Amino acid sequence: MQILVVGGNGTLGKAVVARLRELGHSVISGGRHDADVYVDLADPESIKNMYTDLPELDHVISTAGQTTAKALVDMQPEDNMLSVQSKLLGQINLVIVGQHYLKDGGSFTLTTGIKKDDPIPGGTSAAMANGGVTAFVKSAAIDLPRGLRINAISPNVVDVSFEKLKSQFLGYTPVSITDVAEAFVKSVVGKQTGQEYQIY
Amino acid sequence: MQILVVGGNGTLGKAVVARLRELGHSVISGGRHDADVYVDLADPESIKNMYTDLPELDHVISTAGQTTAKALVDMQPEDNMLSVQSKLLGQINLVIVGQHYLKDGGSFTLTTGIKKDDPIPGGTSAAMANGGVTAFVKSAAIDLPRGLRINAISPNVVDVSFEKLKSQFLGYTPVSITDVAEAFVKSVVGKQTGQEYQIY
Ligand SMILES: NC(=O)c1ccc[n+]([C@@H]2O[C@H](COP(=O)([O-])OP(=O)(O)OC[C@H]3O[C@@H](n4cnc5c(N)ncnc54)[C@H](OP(=O)(O)O)[C@@H]3O)[C@@H](O)[C@H]2O)c1
Ligand SMILES: NC(=O)c1ccc[n+]([C@@H]2O[C@H](COP(=O)([O-])OP(=O)(O)OC[C@H]3O[C@@H](n4cnc5c(N)ncnc54)[C@H](OP(=O)(O)O)[C@@H]3O)[C@@H](O)[C@H]2O)c1
Repeated sequence: MQILVVGGNGTLGKAVVARLRELGHSVISGGRHDADVYVDLADPESIKNMYTDLPELDHVISTAGQTTAKALVDMQPEDNMLSVQSKLLGQINLVIVGQHYLKDGGSFTLTTGIKKDDPIPGGTSAAMANGGVTAFVKSAAIDLPRGLRINAISPNVVDVSFEKLKSQFLGYTPVSITDVAEAFVKSVVGKQTGQEYQIY
Repeated sequence: MQILVVGGNGTLGKAVVARLRELGHSVISGGRHDADVYVDLADPESIKNMYTDLPELDHVISTAGQTTAKALVDMQPEDNMLSVQSKLLGQINLVIVGQHYLKDGGSFTLTTGIKKDDPIPGGTSAAMANGGVTAFVKSAAIDLPRGLRINAISPNVVDVSFEKLKSQFLGYTPVSITDVAEAFVKSVVGKQTGQEYQIY
């Protein structure tokens, strides 16, 4: 079973890759730097090129996608573009393009996050991307061909990121990155579709 | 109390405008055709120009925003751009720009729709826009200045649109447009913020 993890070099991605390898799966990491395969989510052409080079894929995980943190009162219309192009459309384009490449019965697992459900100051742009991805996932589940499945994982801030992010997440109790990585495993090896697993 | 309804010439918008006028409010309609003020949601400059011309606004309602209906399997990355620019970012830009113009204690009320919660074939792009708007609204509510409020209305297919849309909404029971219009009134004259009123 071959699994691609876009964002495999990031905080969440590393934990997901390690856990899948521990379980014996063949894992490829994708990203813009230090990855097995190059992909820039914000560039649909690079997504197509990546899939063309990976003809044996069963499952795709994304733990990638950037967003802008900024107080709403300081935002300009263009400040949402990074979140739209990277976390929202970037992850969605992994599905739109990838549905034609994955093997029958494969799956997509995308990443959202708690900011859409339990908002923080300056979090509107991330919340928008998260909410868009979750709704897309629920809807795509009934529209995907060839038994392909799709789910989203929505983590709270994770323990290993908390030190760096705690000024944004005052009063939040971080969750274990081990539990978050396990939710990705459940999405890939399980049979559910159209779900969002919230690790809050 | 002055209220702008962007999309005031559309199906939902006409009902909202009529109900607000019946209640004695001063209502201005906005849109690209046959409106009191010109605005194209997909063009942030036109949003700025519109607000500059309306210095006495208390409340803004949007019943506007276009989306693309297309089976996921036929979609290309660029097929999401209409939904992103119009329904998602268009409505969000009404807030980003408008927060600096509305009177203290004013409000924004945006429109989403049932496709994000109860998906239909070909509905992924609309679902994405709806989900993004809902999450933005929840998050913006804690970030808006000067006592400004924000809510979203998520209607099921309405009775007066059902004949035209019923092939997409087989098995759905349409809701009364009167009830939907009343939810917009509740958002404007009430004191809640960060809510999505689902008329399902
Ligand atoms: N850490 C948390 O506590 C937490 C909690 C909830 C949600 N999340 C969400 O989970 C996701 C990952 O978070 P993280 O903390 O693991 O972030 P991270 O450590 O910054 O890792 C992000 C990964 O994504 C890749 N990436 C970023 N932009 C990309 C692009 N345009 N194309 C391809 N790859 C790209 C990065 O690699 P390259 O830069 O080399 O491309 C990196 O491998 C984010 O969306 C974040 O909002 C994180
Ligand atoms: N009807 C339903 O049963 C139903 C149910 C759930 C959700 N909704 C949602 O509610 C919203 C309105 O639906 P509707 O049935 O009332 O649609 P509609 O009859 O087509 O009306 C849309 C209105 O929005 C305006 N508009 C469209 N694009 C615009 C833009 N770029 N800038 C400014 N104004 C724009 C249109 O005027 P101009 O073309 O002149 O600009 C028109 O006044 C849509 O987002 C729809 O998805 C509708």
